[in-house]
Amino acid sequence: MTSASAPAAGTGGRVLDHPARDEIRVEAVLHALSDPMRLRIVRELAAAGSELSCSCFELPVTKSTTTHHFRVLRESGIVQQVYRGTAKMNGLRRDDLEELFPGLLDHVLDAADRQARRIGEER
Amino acid sequence: MTSASAPAAGTGGRVLDHPARDEIRVEAVLHALSDPMRLRIVRELAAAGSELSCSCFELPVTKSTTTHHFRVLRESGIVQQVYRGTAKMNGLRRDDLEELFPGLLDHVLDAADRQARRIGEER
Repeated sequence: MTSASAPAAGTGGRVLDHPARDEIRVEAVLHALSDPMRLRIVRELAAAGSELSCSCFELPVTKSTTTHHFRVLRESGIVQQVYRGTAKMNGLRRDDLEELFPGLLDHVLDAADRQARRIGEER
Repeated sequence: MTSASAPAAGTGGRVLDHPARDEIRVEAVLHALSDPMRLRIVRELAAAGSELSCSCFELPVTKSTTTHHFRVLRESGIVQQVYRGTAKMNGLRRDDLEELFPGLLDHVLDAADRQARRIGEER
């Protein structure tokens, strides 16, 4: 186990639990990505290419469901959540995922893009 | 919708429901692959490179659980199940998956292989 993947403490002083890189499991990653809302969040984060606050996402679900989805993404190792002041910022753990599972995230994102174009799904 | 993906009727005359190619969804594929037993089944089918009967798989779960896992794999579009006489044969729908989501299955299999080597998991 390493601490390399642990997020820096936010200015708010609250630090959320994240799996270290070597604790990330492919089954948990696939499970996290198998939900339409979570896949949408990950696609938006990938498109943004930077951290986004939870409030940037306008999802057709309740706030508590949104919080749950972000927690699943964090606990699976896909997303890093850090408090910056009062905002909870979210970023993809691209480096960790790429090191463990090369190409996996990009191929999932590509599959989701292809499906959206094919069936006219909203992003 | 096409019938190109529908499996041929087995000699037993019983035909199981499968999604047509254009009914396959990436979320369902990822969900099916997110279970350790199902991922193991898919890895064994990929390694075999041919159809295998359900009885070829020695999984540490009950027969009814095994049947459930194969059903999830079939209903998600990953596996084609065909009766041949009294045997239910299973094959990966590689062509359908590759057409819809190029490289996805191979990258999931690669990720699972890497994880198995890394943490010494049984296949």
